Amino acid sequence: MGHDEACPSNPLAYLNENYLKLQAGYLFPEIARRVREYCEANPGVEERLIRCGIGDVTEPLPRAAIDAMHKAIDDLGRRETFRGYGPEQGYPFLRAAIAQGDFRDRHIEISDDEIFVSDGSKCDCGYILDILGDQNKIAITDPVYPVYVDTNVMAGHTGDAREDKSYEGIVYLPCTAENGFVPAPPKEHVDLIYLCFPNNPTGAVASRKQLADWVEYARSHDALILFDAAYEGYISDPAIPHSIYEIEGARECAVEFRSFSKTGGFTGVRCGFTVMPKSVLGKTEAGRKVPLHGLWHRRWSTKSNSVSYPVQRAAEALYTPEGRKQIAVLIKHYMGNAAILREAAAGAGMKVHGGSNAPYIWVETPKGLSSWEMFDRFLKELNVVITPGSGFGAQGEGFIRISAFNSRSNAEEVARRLESFKA
Amino acid sequence: MGHDEACPSNPLAYLNENYLKLQAGYLFPEIARRVREYCEANPGVEERLIRCGIGDVTEPLPRAAIDAMHKAIDDLGRRETFRGYGPEQGYPFLRAAIAQGDFRDRHIEISDDEIFVSDGSKCDCGYILDILGDQNKIAITDPVYPVYVDTNVMAGHTGDAREDKSYEGIVYLPCTAENGFVPAPPKEHVDLIYLCFPNNPTGAVASRKQLADWVEYARSHDALILFDAAYEGYISDPAIPHSIYEIEGARECAVEFRSFSKTGGFTGVRCGFTVMPKSVLGKTEAGRKVPLHGLWHRRWSTKSNSVSYPVQRAAEALYTPEGRKQIAVLIKHYMGNAAILREAAAGAGMKVHGGSNAPYIWVETPKGLSSWEMFDRFLKELNVVITPGSGFGAQGEGFIRISAFNSRSNAEEVARRLESFKA
Repeated sequence: MGHDEACPSNPLAYLNENYLKLQAGYLFPEIARRVREYCEANPGVEERLIRCGIGDVTEPLPRAAIDAMHKAIDDLGRRETFRGYGPEQGYPFLRAAIAQGDFRDRHIEISDDEIFVSDGSKCDCGYILDILGDQNKIAITDPVYPVYVDTNVMAGHTGDAREDKSYEGIVYLPCTAENGFVPAPPKEHVDLIYLCFPNNPTGAVASRKQLADWVEYARSHDALILFDAAYEGYISDPAIPHSIYEIEGARECAVEFRSFSKTGGFTGVRCGFTVMPKSVLGKTEAGRKVPLHGLWHRRWSTKSNSVSYPVQRAAEALYTPEGRKQIAVLIKHYMGNAAILREAAAGAGMKVHGGSNAPYIWVETPKGLSSWEMFDRFLKELNVVITPGSGFGAQGEGFIRISAFNSRSNAEEVARRLESFKA
Repeated sequence: MGHDEACPSNPLAYLNENYLKLQAGYLFPEIARRVREYCEANPGVEERLIRCGIGDVTEPLPRAAIDAMHKAIDDLGRRETFRGYGPEQGYPFLRAAIAQGDFRDRHIEISDDEIFVSDGSKCDCGYILDILGDQNKIAITDPVYPVYVDTNVMAGHTGDAREDKSYEGIVYLPCTAENGFVPAPPKEHVDLIYLCFPNNPTGAVASRKQLADWVEYARSHDALILFDAAYEGYISDPAIPHSIYEIEGARECAVEFRSFSKTGGFTGVRCGFTVMPKSVLGKTEAGRKVPLHGLWHRRWSTKSNSVSYPVQRAAEALYTPEGRKQIAVLIKHYMGNAAILREAAAGAGMKVHGGSNAPYIWVETPKGLSSWEMFDRFLKELNVVITPGSGFGAQGEGFIRISAFNSRSNAEEVARRLESFKA
C-alpha cells in the first residue's frame, strides 16, 4: 500500500488527544510554507529574499568553540582518550565552567550540581513539565514564545483553543505598549509563571524592581517562576539583571533556562542548560514538600544520556578568555544590526520597540494592518521575511518582529529597502 | 543559606507525584555507587577493576565518522557554509541515508520522512509516551531495559511499586530459560507492547516466526508494538530479522527505535532515530483514527531543534562504504569478546545464554545466589563489574549480565580470572 493512505485496518493504541487541540502549524513552519509558496510563484525572487524571520544566527561559530570541538573529536578517535556515555546531567567540567562563569563570578550563589546541561533551551522549556503536576494554574505572557503554550497544551494543562488561538485554562498576562511589555503580577493566584527577559518576541527587558515584584509574588503565592534567560547576553544596560537569581529570594522560587544558541551561535550545535537550585521545593497534593532538584536529576538519568561530548567541550570553551572575547564580537555585530534596523523602521514611519538590550525589534503595524498583512507586505514589497506578531499570541496582533540575526550587509540592505517603504 | 538545606519557606507549585513512586536508584547509578564504595574501602583496587557492567563501548569512533565531524565543524566555522537551526526531524541527507541504507536496500518499504533523527534511542523510548494516551494497557518483558518501565511510571501509567519492585498496572511478560527468553503474546488484551531484540539484557534474539506471532497479536488486538532494535547490528545469523518491518503487516502496528550507539560507537556522540510509518494509526477515546506520524512530527517541531549538525554528518558517514566496513570491524571485535567471555563463564561451570547475536551474555547464578550476591562475588573475588540481573526486573533474579563491550585484552583478562573462579 502507498505510504500516504491511512490503512483501513483497525485503529490501534490510544493517542494523546491533547495534541488534537493544538492550533494548525507551529509558527515557524507556517512562515516557511508561505515563503516557499511565494518563491515558487515568483521564480528568481528567492535570491533577493532576506530573512529576518526566525531568530537564527548567521555568523560562524567562535574559533574557541571550533578548536575545542576538533580536539574533542580527536579524543574520541583514540582509545586512550575515548569517552562513551557521560554523566546524564552533563560533564563536571562544563557544569563547573557555567556555575563559576555565569553565576559565582557575578556573586550569585549557584553550585555546580545545580546546573543541568541539555541540548537546548527549547527542549528544557518543554521537559520541565515532566516533573510538575497537572494541577498547576499556569500564567503565560502574551505575546509569548509559542513553545511555553504548546507544551502545556500537549501535557493537557489547558482546555480547547478559542477563536483568537488562546487556550482555555491559561492565565494570559498582556504585554502592551502601555506596560512597556513587562506585565505586573496578576491579582489572582497562579502556581506557575513563564517569564522571558530579554523578551522574545518584544525585545523588552525587565528592571530589577519589576523582577523583584515577581519574586515577591511567587513567594507570597507559592508560585514557581520559570525564567527564560536565553537572551541575557544581549543586555548592555548595567542596571538590568541578567539572571533571576540576582533578585533576593529567587533561589527559593525560580528555575532558570539558559542557552548557548544566541551567545555562541550554537543554534545548530545544540547546547543549553537549566539552573535548578536545591532550595526550590514542590508540593504534593497532600502538602508534602519535596525539592524539585531530585526529580529533575531523576528525569535526566532516566530519559537522557546527556549531550554530545564534543558539544560540551565547545560550550566549555565559550568560558575561556578567547571564547568570551569572540562572543562579545558576535553580540556587538548583531546589536549593530539591531540599531540599523530600528532606525530604518522608525525612519519609514513605524513605531518601534525593543532592539536595545535584545536582538529583536518589535514594530507596530501601521494603518490597522494585521500582523499577517504586514508580513505579506514585507514579503512581497520588500522581499524581506519577518515574523507576524500575532503568531506569538493575541496581544501580538498589530505587531511584527524583526530579527537582528543577519549579516551586516543584509541588515544594511533591509534598511535601504525600507527607505522607499511607505508605512 | 546553605545549598543542601531545604528552605523552610512555603512549598511551591505542585510536582508530578508519579516520580515519588519510582524505586530508589536507577540501576546504573546504583552500581556506580557500590563500585565507588568498594574502591574507596580498598585503595589500589581501582586499577585492577574491569568493567563489564554498563553496556558502553570502549573502542574509538570509526574514522569515517571522525572525518565527517571535522569537516562539518569547519563548515560551521565559515560564513558561507555555516548552518544554524536544522529541520526539527533531522536533516534530509541523514534521513535519506538511513531510510535507504537500513531499510530500502534491504527491501523494506520506509520513506525518508518516516525517519525521525534523535539524540539517542534512550530518549526516544521515553518521548514516544508524549503522543500516546494514558488509557493504554502496557505490556513489558521481564527482565527489561529499565527505561521502558520508569518512563511509564513517570507518566502515571502504573500503580505503586510492589515489594519485588514490579509495578501495579503493568502486564509483565516473563522471559525465562524455558521460553528461550522470548515470550509469546499474552492471552489478555494490551494496547502497547515493548519488545527489544536482540535483547538487552538477555542477549536473546527473536525468530521470524516469533515476531510474526507478535505482529499477528498486535493486528488482531489493536495493539501497538514499540520495537527497540538498538542491537540489530550484532545479528550474524541470516535467519534472524533485523527490523520488525521485515514482518508482513508491521507497517500498520509497529514503531521501531534504532541507535548508532552500539554500531558506530556513538554512546558519547549521541544519535539515534525512530521509524514512524505513516500507516500506524492511533485512536481517540471516541474511536477517531489518527496517524501517529503527524503527532510525532508535531512533538519534534515543538519540543526540539533536532540534533547537532556535526553529529548528523557523523551518522551519515556510517552509511558510506568505509563507514560500513569500520562498523563491521567494531562489531567483529565486540562479538569476539563475547565468544571469549561466553566460553570462560561456561568453563567456570556457569550456565550461559545470549552472546551469539548480541553483545550481552546472560548467566545463571550458581547455588541459588541472588543477582546482587553474584555481583558482589564478581566485584570482590574477580574485581570485575557486571550487572545484576535483578536490576532488570523480577525475572532477572538469579542471573547476571556480562557485557562484551571492552578491549580484547580486558576480555581475555576476565577469562583468565574466571579460570580460578569456583561457580
